[in-house]
Amino acid sequence: MAERIVIIGADAAGMSAASQARRVAARSGREVELVAVDRGHWTSYSACGIPYWVGGDVDGPHGLVARSAEEHRQNGIDVRLSTEARAVDLDTGQVEVVGNGSARTTRLGFDHLVLATGAVPARPPLPGIDADGVFGVQTLDDGATVIDYLARRRPSRAVVVGAGYIGLEMAEAMVRRGLQVTVLERAPEPMTTLDPDMGSHVRTAMQGMGIEVVTGVTVEGFDTAPGTVSATPAGGSVRRVRTDAGDYDADIVVLGIGARPATQLASDAGLPLGATGGLRVDDRMRVSGHENVWAAGDCVETFHRVLASYVHVPLGTHANKQGRVLGMNLGGGNAVFPGIVGTAVSKVCDLEIARTGVSVAEADAAGLDYVTTTIESTTRAGYFPGAQPLTVKIVAERSTHRLLGGQIVGREGAAKRIDVLAVALWNGMSAGDLAMSDMSYAPPFSPVWDPVQIAARKAADELD
Amino acid sequence: MAERIVIIGADAAGMSAASQARRVAARSGREVELVAVDRGHWTSYSACGIPYWVGGDVDGPHGLVARSAEEHRQNGIDVRLSTEARAVDLDTGQVEVVGNGSARTTRLGFDHLVLATGAVPARPPLPGIDADGVFGVQTLDDGATVIDYLARRRPSRAVVVGAGYIGLEMAEAMVRRGLQVTVLERAPEPMTTLDPDMGSHVRTAMQGMGIEVVTGVTVEGFDTAPGTVSATPAGGSVRRVRTDAGDYDADIVVLGIGARPATQLASDAGLPLGATGGLRVDDRMRVSGHENVWAAGDCVETFHRVLASYVHVPLGTHANKQGRVLGMNLGGGNAVFPGIVGTAVSKVCDLEIARTGVSVAEADAAGLDYVTTTIESTTRAGYFPGAQPLTVKIVAERSTHRLLGGQIVGREGAAKRIDVLAVALWNGMSAGDLAMSDMSYAPPFSPVWDPVQIAARKAADELD
Repeated sequence: MAERIVIIGADAAGMSAASQARRVAARSGREVELVAVDRGHWTSYSACGIPYWVGGDVDGPHGLVARSAEEHRQNGIDVRLSTEARAVDLDTGQVEVVGNGSARTTRLGFDHLVLATGAVPARPPLPGIDADGVFGVQTLDDGATVIDYLARRRPSRAVVVGAGYIGLEMAEAMVRRGLQVTVLERAPEPMTTLDPDMGSHVRTAMQGMGIEVVTGVTVEGFDTAPGTVSATPAGGSVRRVRTDAGDYDADIVVLGIGARPATQLASDAGLPLGATGGLRVDDRMRVSGHENVWAAGDCVETFHRVLASYVHVPLGTHANKQGRVLGMNLGGGNAVFPGIVGTAVSKVCDLEIARTGVSVAEADAAGLDYVTTTIESTTRAGYFPGAQPLTVKIVAERSTHRLLGGQIVGREGAAKRIDVLAVALWNGMSAGDLAMSDMSYAPPFSPVWDPVQIAARKAADELD
Repeated sequence: MAERIVIIGADAAGMSAASQARRVAARSGREVELVAVDRGHWTSYSACGIPYWVGGDVDGPHGLVARSAEEHRQNGIDVRLSTEARAVDLDTGQVEVVGNGSARTTRLGFDHLVLATGAVPARPPLPGIDADGVFGVQTLDDGATVIDYLARRRPSRAVVVGAGYIGLEMAEAMVRRGLQVTVLERAPEPMTTLDPDMGSHVRTAMQGMGIEVVTGVTVEGFDTAPGTVSATPAGGSVRRVRTDAGDYDADIVVLGIGARPATQLASDAGLPLGATGGLRVDDRMRVSGHENVWAAGDCVETFHRVLASYVHVPLGTHANKQGRVLGMNLGGGNAVFPGIVGTAVSKVCDLEIARTGVSVAEADAAGLDYVTTTIESTTRAGYFPGAQPLTVKIVAERSTHRLLGGQIVGREGAAKRIDVLAVALWNGMSAGDLAMSDMSYAPPFSPVWDPVQIAARKAADELD
């Protein structure tokens, strides 16, 4: 009889896992039955595309779906949407599910369980945070809700809480929808995954597109009508954001203060969570200590190769890779997820922003001894039409000279250069090694020393 | 007394060496006297920018000069232009030079000699090759000569011989100057540093901009008037290119069939050349067997890390790095030039072209056992505005799974991705390692699996 694999969560990690398990099992003639449940309405979509959908740059929601439920079903995966997993019983090997219009709980037996429950936007317990018009953005359904709100209420003032990737992208989306936008950030500069000196470039770009940027400010609550605080949606729609430095009018609020792993179900079932709150898995994506339970994506914590410790980094790129590795192993193959180095990229207006490895703050927290160098250069030869400015910052370890981190801000053509630094870090290269490596050069593409190599060279000089 | 360092050749390699030697020597309190001679009229310029200058996209020649002779002199380097080194006497430590308007030969003593004599465009001994209007393009002076010819003669038909980097760039420059352009290439497809299946994309792009591309054809000579063949400039200007497949009218001819190391001077002095014709140097850029003779740039041969053999690759990026390493060592420091992996990038019209490592032909010649994979993807998420098609091809070794080479063709945003492959090759990464590495992702920058990773993943699957 076929082994049954139940997958909870039908986005990137879950469906990559299901597809790979099916493919690999089929190759070895192993019979598997794949059942994927998800409380939402979509499969295999690009959550990263939501801000661009909200901003009107891309079509959604269908345009953001890489593979629909129907396509997965045609591949033999039993996808059940609008279906919520309520509990997992590891002893009997069953999942309690409710859904598809019925309030009845049914039990779904499994031989293997895959947890791909994702992450949920952080919602600190502030007064009024559950008011109508205060949104976190994580799923396609969240995106649809925001778009619906914008269409129905026609808000004119948006406040975005948090100036990280999602906050910035949603702020830009709101500007493109014609709203007045204020971004509130607790830190001294936006984008705290960068060092403040690099984050200040982000502030300038945001201000350049008319966004009000307020930093060093703590949000204390949300008012639904002048002077009143509501703690429930029934209390009305958001009207104002209260902070320790005054109030900000808002017809819509977007929370961009991070996401936490959605692990309640796993935790209730007694599965192990790490210090980050994410599920502990081994490098084959098996939940630690559980032979037949697997997990991948935004609900797990991940090994950071530079820090040599576990971190929670909910990004689609990791979810896809982890799902693939999980599925290969589950299908009978052999694959390893080798960890991450903390690479990320984004843009706000025409400023491209990228980082990899550790920032100065992370290096300090990890007790690393380092030097930093920052250089200004151009995306093409300085004399070539279209050459754009960019700034590259490098963090390198004093004792070993190895690269610890890199940050890039600049105009078109700047950010993707971070991948070279990411692969260099991945391999433990020293700053001097990278400076001398054989990167491509022609005037339409870079100065004769690529900006990344100029920065690495300067770091190497500094270390000598 | 100060040691005298004589540098022959005042472009990238020579002047990088001079500048570094000065800097490093000064730091250690060592006294050096630096004399640089060059038969041309310029220092430290971007030869790679010449086609764009000819095409009218960038200003020249001054705009292509990174540091002028005057600037170098202000830094204490005695630069002597229009001054040709005629002979080197290693026994007495002297260089014979002629120049600056005088026919008198003078002797310049040296404690250390730096050879940075560059390369010269290949000029096969074909009938008529020395006719007026047949140009190789290597130096700023060459560029000025071509521009002058275009202005004076107003040619309407250009033939470019050779469809490599220079040939393609010069063909595009001629199109931009309003000429009808034919490119003649001996191989089956343009750009033979790529595999033919990738080169065919280049052919399509060239044809798309109106260039006539004739492949599989051998040039046999140049006519200066209908029916006559001239072997000297005095015989008149070029009028036609003869090939084994018919004749092509031409008012101007550009040779783009490679460059050979300019090593006559070195060879006459008894210095060792390798099989490539380039000077043999160690990894500190010292000429093999000669304590006080150094060389860098287009006149030397270079260690190819993937092939583990010596190659001649005349590119500005190597010249700059080698010059820097040479200068650091010569100044009393300690630096190593670690070789190359064969990275190069170019564009023709809006097609970007890049390669690194070995092509299939090179892998075959080296007796490597490999698999290849080719994928089509996009420069941004498929649904994101401005996503452009690109093709990535990977060559990976069957036994070790290590990456051997990569090729990319595509529209804007495609080619610089080659650097990731270059750094991966540099580190001996396997296809599977690269597929799982932490490259950046956001919809404006790449699909969730970067195209390079899609290709690496497919290669890894193939190898399994």
